[in-house]
Amino acid sequence: MPQSSVKRFVHSIMYTISIILTLCLLSCTTPEAQSSPSNFGLVVHGGAGTILKKNMTQEKEAAYRAKMEEALKKGYEILNNGGSSLDAVEATIHILEDAPLFNAGKGAVFTSEETNELDASIMDGATLNAGAVAGVKHIKNPITAARLVMENSPHVMMSGSGAEEFARQNGVEMVDPDYFRTERRLKQLQRAKEKESSQGAIDAPSEMNNFKFGTVGVAALDKNGNLAAGTSTGGMTNKRYGRIGDSPVIGAGTYADNNTCAVSSTGHGEYFIRSVVAYDIAALMAYKGMSLEEAANHVVNEKLVEREGSGGIIAIDKDGNVAMPFNTPGMYRGFVKSDGKIVVKIYKD
Amino acid sequence: MPQSSVKRFVHSIMYTISIILTLCLLSCTTPEAQSSPSNFGLVVHGGAGTILKKNMTQEKEAAYRAKMEEALKKGYEILNNGGSSLDAVEATIHILEDAPLFNAGKGAVFTSEETNELDASIMDGATLNAGAVAGVKHIKNPITAARLVMENSPHVMMSGSGAEEFARQNGVEMVDPDYFRTERRLKQLQRAKEKESSQGAIDAPSEMNNFKFGTVGVAALDKNGNLAAGTSTGGMTNKRYGRIGDSPVIGAGTYADNNTCAVSSTGHGEYFIRSVVAYDIAALMAYKGMSLEEAANHVVNEKLVEREGSGGIIAIDKDGNVAMPFNTPGMYRGFVKSDGKIVVKIYKD
Repeated sequence: MPQSSVKRFVHSIMYTISIILTLCLLSCTTPEAQSSPSNFGLVVHGGAGTILKKNMTQEKEAAYRAKMEEALKKGYEILNNGGSSLDAVEATIHILEDAPLFNAGKGAVFTSEETNELDASIMDGATLNAGAVAGVKHIKNPITAARLVMENSPHVMMSGSGAEEFARQNGVEMVDPDYFRTERRLKQLQRAKEKESSQGAIDAPSEMNNFKFGTVGVAALDKNGNLAAGTSTGGMTNKRYGRIGDSPVIGAGTYADNNTCAVSSTGHGEYFIRSVVAYDIAALMAYKGMSLEEAANHVVNEKLVEREGSGGIIAIDKDGNVAMPFNTPGMYRGFVKSDGKIVVKIYKD
Repeated sequence: MPQSSVKRFVHSIMYTISIILTLCLLSCTTPEAQSSPSNFGLVVHGGAGTILKKNMTQEKEAAYRAKMEEALKKGYEILNNGGSSLDAVEATIHILEDAPLFNAGKGAVFTSEETNELDASIMDGATLNAGAVAGVKHIKNPITAARLVMENSPHVMMSGSGAEEFARQNGVEMVDPDYFRTERRLKQLQRAKEKESSQGAIDAPSEMNNFKFGTVGVAALDKNGNLAAGTSTGGMTNKRYGRIGDSPVIGAGTYADNNTCAVSSTGHGEYFIRSVVAYDIAALMAYKGMSLEEAANHVVNEKLVEREGSGGIIAIDKDGNVAMPFNTPGMYRGFVKSDGKIVVKIYKD
């Protein structure tokens, strides 16, 4: 090899190394560059399941869209005015809990004993503090009770009448159980019981599909870079034995950490608990360097699909990116970012 | 550069590459080589906390050691005879639940209403199936109820009287609540209440230290390479409001996956829920390639210490390695491997 060739060889190696170094630096700085103090956002779900356009009336679809938009507007208003992600999550979930359209608060599904038993949880990504209530029957807005467990007690999770006693002592609005009673959900229970008595116990995932969806959840990033997530549900139609799903389980139904993302889940809760879905998305970002989109898709469309766990999640990361993957025919979902543009979707694109 | 130098340069690069490739191949095959069908083991805890030699009588220490040894022997016998890790976990926990020494089953701590409310969970690493009960008052061995929730229901988590109804229907041994009543735990409750009334609400971690430990847990690997873990507890002395700790929460108190490890936690449950402790150890192994020892130490002695969460975990991985890290003065713990040698420890080494 003549000396000039060696020189060219060394130069080309130096050039390649400099390109690689530049690419490394770029990939390391890109996420930081995306983040800015005014970069905020909020993402919402109203449940995943067999939601098909052919089964939907125009009026029903319009009602869902209007309520999702109202919730997103409320959350945007709070964040845009400099409010905290926790306040935005709580206020947005209130709107969905108060609407009989969703399986949370008013409109919750019935247990096999014709009662409504509600679960909710919330997590603060800044402190990793969290609160949850399970199996409450008299609390108008379970998400507020969950937040008070987080802020006014040393505990994370309270259940049943004990949780209600705590809520009452902390000034939460209590209602008569009849408040939660809707004709639509009562009919769903009757249909579930008829199916059960004609087919035996409902335990095959396919049979459960129609009886378990409609949970609501919100994840938000505020102007201070704080993430928060919350989830609220009536659980599963015809549920019994004090069944607790994933919604009040931190790590499964709800998770938030300022270093990664905020997540709320909806779907077949048992599968979400066993796969620690919400935390798994954060772990894939933290430990494998995945983007939110990659991590959320991997968990919902690969891991959960392999394990036959149907449902979806909504999430927002520390840079304001949102993800809304689901492996069911539809999911009520939407988001709003700093620009104020509200996006609501129901079916697969 | 003369041509001979270029040749030597190219040769030395080829040599370096071949060494790197060999090292890579070796590091990939080593874990497989460690594993063998007859490589089994079981690891047990009886709670972490302020356990100091100076506060322990010889008789008390001997009683704890004897019971831990009895439990480990039982688990070893099952595994050595080709039994499943699930059977070993359940039978070993039975011995600890039946012993008044530990805060699980008989010997459980009292709630503020002078009742005993028990929680337990179990997970099968082969199927990722799991079961848990929370807040039960009449079930002699909550770990057995948790296993039946896993095996005989489509649910993962049941609570309160609903969980008891399910247990009764599935033939679980029920007892009068007086069965759980021990004078020692009643005195602990009285002391906790006296402290509370003289100091106000107990919510500082330091004040809670003495009232919350003693949970039992087991993780096992059987001859077929199947992992399982289980945890059982009476919760926290003077607990109220239907408080649920980490023990019945899959991902926090218990986790098992044949691809990584089986883990059972003990400590200040609220911190363990928020840090998703048991699953986090598995995630660090799966996503960061850490060894069990590295992952367990990172979570217990770094993450939890930073977050002021006191306690410990026991774990066994798919190759039969065990880890028993804790960040408290002591933890009742022990393990046995294929060689049948039983090791029991209480204090820091």
